Amino acid sequence: MPSTRRHALATLAALGGASLADAFAQTPQAGAAPASKRLQVLMLVHPDMTALDLVGPQLVFATMGDVDTHMVWKDLSPVTTDSGLKLVPGMTFADAPKAPDILFVPGGLKGTTALLQDEETLRFLRERGASARWVTGVCTGVLLLGAAGLLRGYRATAHWYVQDILPVFDAEPSADRVVIDRNRVTGGAVTAGIDMALTMSAMLRGDDKARTQELAFGYAPMPPFAAGTPELAGEALTKRVLESRAPAISAARRAAEMARQRWAG
Amino acid sequence: MPSTRRHALATLAALGGASLADAFAQTPQAGAAPASKRLQVLMLVHPDMTALDLVGPQLVFATMGDVDTHMVWKDLSPVTTDSGLKLVPGMTFADAPKAPDILFVPGGLKGTTALLQDEETLRFLRERGASARWVTGVCTGVLLLGAAGLLRGYRATAHWYVQDILPVFDAEPSADRVVIDRNRVTGGAVTAGIDMALTMSAMLRGDDKARTQELAFGYAPMPPFAAGTPELAGEALTKRVLESRAPAISAARRAAEMARQRWAG
Repeated sequence: MPSTRRHALATLAALGGASLADAFAQTPQAGAAPASKRLQVLMLVHPDMTALDLVGPQLVFATMGDVDTHMVWKDLSPVTTDSGLKLVPGMTFADAPKAPDILFVPGGLKGTTALLQDEETLRFLRERGASARWVTGVCTGVLLLGAAGLLRGYRATAHWYVQDILPVFDAEPSADRVVIDRNRVTGGAVTAGIDMALTMSAMLRGDDKARTQELAFGYAPMPPFAAGTPELAGEALTKRVLESRAPAISAARRAAEMARQRWAG
Repeated sequence: MPSTRRHALATLAALGGASLADAFAQTPQAGAAPASKRLQVLMLVHPDMTALDLVGPQLVFATMGDVDTHMVWKDLSPVTTDSGLKLVPGMTFADAPKAPDILFVPGGLKGTTALLQDEETLRFLRERGASARWVTGVCTGVLLLGAAGLLRGYRATAHWYVQDILPVFDAEPSADRVVIDRNRVTGGAVTAGIDMALTMSAMLRGDDKARTQELAFGYAPMPPFAAGTPELAGEALTKRVLESRAPAISAARRAAEMARQRWAG
């Protein structure tokens, strides 16, 4: 089955059979929720995460209308991201709503690898993911969804250099930038989170809202070089980047395999 | 003169006459600095800023190699951005290097408008901007560079809904996504910061470095709708967005005009 058609069908399934056109035609007016029905979005923050993985989606989610975004972590101390930027969590795991509308997990190779070995975080993701309306993640953060058992039998994407680790968690890897499979929505490397979140905004609030967001955020990107995928960058550069990341990618794979082994126990 | 050629000449001027090809041909190897020569990047953080304005450029700057990025504000208390995300400053105005390599200012309409009336911040920008090697900003933050007198006689861009305020500060407005005029580098709305920073990465560290960053960050964007500029979004949507922002844009213009009047005093 062609991948586009499979996506469309998966989306339909997630929407309970409504047509894709219907799903995208929800206007912001029609989608406006009473205060008691504001969407609750839980976004994991953690040490050594990549801030941009989260900050693009957070802006999109926060401006969809009738949404509360919560930055969640074990405690409320600032976390230092992998580029040195410090973010402050706004809510602890213990206080996070039990049935969020959206659960979101950012990546960051070193931080992801650490959390693949952290049962407290994986348990939090497993529990909230089981009751979340949408389970989402980008970049290497998708591995954490996998380790929490949330991608078994699902098609998913991730940062291009860890996509082939997804089968460790019984997920079907995709090289697409954004993948929707039923209520799992995943994005590729770092900047793919913006496209993932805009796609969700269109699904949840209508394409008029998503178009308004693109306009407000000036989202007509012009990458100065066309090198944002291995195909575009070419073999030589891709090989060089992979080699420079090889120890970190290997460590992520080992951590993923150990996390998978703990499922049996 | 066609705008592309004017940009090229402006860039040449900024580079002291080196050819544009030379500027982009600096390899990361050639550009690698000893520890004592790490680039010092000062990035303003402030209440009601738009986090994504800063977080894209911060990731690009921080990974150019041999760079220290400093988030600067009046004090070190967390600032709450306009989407609710909290960032922690890492350095006070008082402690910021006197002659930074890059000074960067993010936007956020409400936060910018407040700072247009804040002499302490404008003085900081004026002083550091006078000695900075590169003076940069994106979105509405460009107005703060203008208010600090750093854009007099310079061509600059900004968020599309405040570009026409730039002449208040004797700057020549441009609708381009990224504008380089001598050592002033400005970007349009929110996401333009990523393109601005990658352009600077290529100038300062060579195009191989910028290509590597595009690949590592998966920067092959696929906006789900093609609505990221007024031209792409069309008149009806643009009018609606402008109307919804009209009071805030008017407030920014009034604050800009008052800031300009203080130059005389």
